[in-house]
Amino acid sequence: MIPVKGYAAQSPTTDLAPWDFERREVGPHDVQFDILFCGVCHSDLHQIKNDWFEGIFPMVPGHEIVGRVVKVGDHVKKFKVGDLAGTGCLVDSCRVCDNCKQDLEQYCLNGGSFTYNGVEQDKKTPTYGGYSNSIVVHEDFVLHVSDKLNLAAAAPLLCAGITTWSPLRHWKVGKGHKLAVLGLGGLGHMGVKFGVALGAEVTVLSTSPKKEADAKKLGAHHFVVTSDPAQIEAAKGSFDFILDTVSAPHDFNMYLSLLKTDGTHICVGVPADPASIAAFSIIAGRKSLAGSSIGGIAETQEMLDFCAEHNIVSDIELIDIKDIHASYDRMEKGDVRYRFVIDMATL
Amino acid sequence: MIPVKGYAAQSPTTDLAPWDFERREVGPHDVQFDILFCGVCHSDLHQIKNDWFEGIFPMVPGHEIVGRVVKVGDHVKKFKVGDLAGTGCLVDSCRVCDNCKQDLEQYCLNGGSFTYNGVEQDKKTPTYGGYSNSIVVHEDFVLHVSDKLNLAAAAPLLCAGITTWSPLRHWKVGKGHKLAVLGLGGLGHMGVKFGVALGAEVTVLSTSPKKEADAKKLGAHHFVVTSDPAQIEAAKGSFDFILDTVSAPHDFNMYLSLLKTDGTHICVGVPADPASIAAFSIIAGRKSLAGSSIGGIAETQEMLDFCAEHNIVSDIELIDIKDIHASYDRMEKGDVRYRFVIDMATL
Repeated sequence: MIPVKGYAAQSPTTDLAPWDFERREVGPHDVQFDILFCGVCHSDLHQIKNDWFEGIFPMVPGHEIVGRVVKVGDHVKKFKVGDLAGTGCLVDSCRVCDNCKQDLEQYCLNGGSFTYNGVEQDKKTPTYGGYSNSIVVHEDFVLHVSDKLNLAAAAPLLCAGITTWSPLRHWKVGKGHKLAVLGLGGLGHMGVKFGVALGAEVTVLSTSPKKEADAKKLGAHHFVVTSDPAQIEAAKGSFDFILDTVSAPHDFNMYLSLLKTDGTHICVGVPADPASIAAFSIIAGRKSLAGSSIGGIAETQEMLDFCAEHNIVSDIELIDIKDIHASYDRMEKGDVRYRFVIDMATL
Repeated sequence: MIPVKGYAAQSPTTDLAPWDFERREVGPHDVQFDILFCGVCHSDLHQIKNDWFEGIFPMVPGHEIVGRVVKVGDHVKKFKVGDLAGTGCLVDSCRVCDNCKQDLEQYCLNGGSFTYNGVEQDKKTPTYGGYSNSIVVHEDFVLHVSDKLNLAAAAPLLCAGITTWSPLRHWKVGKGHKLAVLGLGGLGHMGVKFGVALGAEVTVLSTSPKKEADAKKLGAHHFVVTSDPAQIEAAKGSFDFILDTVSAPHDFNMYLSLLKTDGTHICVGVPADPASIAAFSIIAGRKSLAGSSIGGIAETQEMLDFCAEHNIVSDIELIDIKDIHASYDRMEKGDVRYRFVIDMATL
């Protein structure tokens, strides 16, 4: 076994603190890479607090992981020692179900192995995430990260990036489309960058007028203050797609009214309370409310390659791991532009 | 003006009763047809009761109208005296908006003219529906009904038919698809017939085990009793589409769990209470909740032609117009197989 240092929550009521644990030995198809940076996702906080479901403790969060390969198994073909590497929300899946066969490992019908707070495909060995100094992952679930990109700023691509990229690609959002991005946080700011890069006309919808300058700097063409009834009225029936990155409660019927006929409201945020949808909000105009979860492995590589080509990374604040709880506090207030990334050298 | 006899509600609190009113003279592009049969839609009851919005009174309900042409305007090309004719939920639309230009008059951006409880395109002249003995409609909103079909049983095609046909066509439901039809009433029984005729493998989802024999008789391949947890468990992740015809409150999250990855739950019923949708119900499996409203005029003609070719009509109970309130009472209890149609000779 490989000794590893990390930060773990021992229970849903304890703070994260240093924890020594072990990773499996590097198997014939495994890649071991030392973690240089790990992004901080809002779901890290939800999971260590058991907000969504009963977690597996000790829990080492982190699924926006980048670093450098230090060891590869005998049969590994895709990576060599010294390569940059990344891993997102998944470290394995069944590989045999209809979805896995179609590169939709994120919807694995037998249950994918999440990078942390999950179990390996043996359905019992717990997985531990990226708030740690090294990780061992089957090469099929390791991504290439271009050295053209700022590595720290590339880390959030592995979750915030793919979570917004995947629906934009699935619904073929691009030239000729009017895309609204709802919420300008970790996910939203990536949605803006990708929407613009894919050729869509992008509007940021936000409750906060203060975010307009930032939205424009990120490339958004328009900005609508959602608390201003006049601006909402003017935006009615105007969008082909809304990419909804908001986890706080919000009025879905109001947003659905901003869609054109046949428009789609795509949820990638996970509000705790259910959405309340009036029948006429979707029946009038044949509208859809859809959801999307992260992305498949091939699609994640496609996104990373696109980012390398278009020089797209996340806007980040690099933090010391000892400041993780202060960062969580700021994240809960929406006070981050736009993603915290842990410098793992501080571990 | 043309004197007409009908049944009207004088206010939301009064019963329907005989009422004499006038139709416009037949203009150069108008078709006048004597109404032989008119279907009874649940929305008739909702509208005379002001359940959805403040109605226009006196109100003559009815938008499943068939009859025989008695007069045509000088410029009418599509119809001649003696032809069978039908009119559904729309008697006009703006004809110039993006949706009208794409044969989506049901989503007219300037407001279509509903057959009753609406206004003509002058935005002031009220429209009166099919619980009457004659109607005058612009030829563009009059449909051909084949004399191969039982005319009384064809009446419900104009609303129940097109409302289920349109989404099945829009989402290209057919061979290779597993379609669930939720609710076996006026809409649902048409959804089953169309789903089967279009080549889908059709399952009826119903709270009532008593409906199984009927569902199979209508052509459904399978039947799931939704109040039986074992049957629901076995149906999880199995449908490409759910056609939801239910207006009573129901658990959308449970039904969404029955969809495959990328499945779509299509609402054509109009529950009074909003749907409550948990984020994970759509995010896990990239599912969609969509709505659909009636259909366009060209699509309605396509449906009627398909029905003539495949000998599809509604299963009906023919009623005397004096029994309309008794029929409403039975309709509210779901006690109708599957659509009441008024024999207008009884007026």
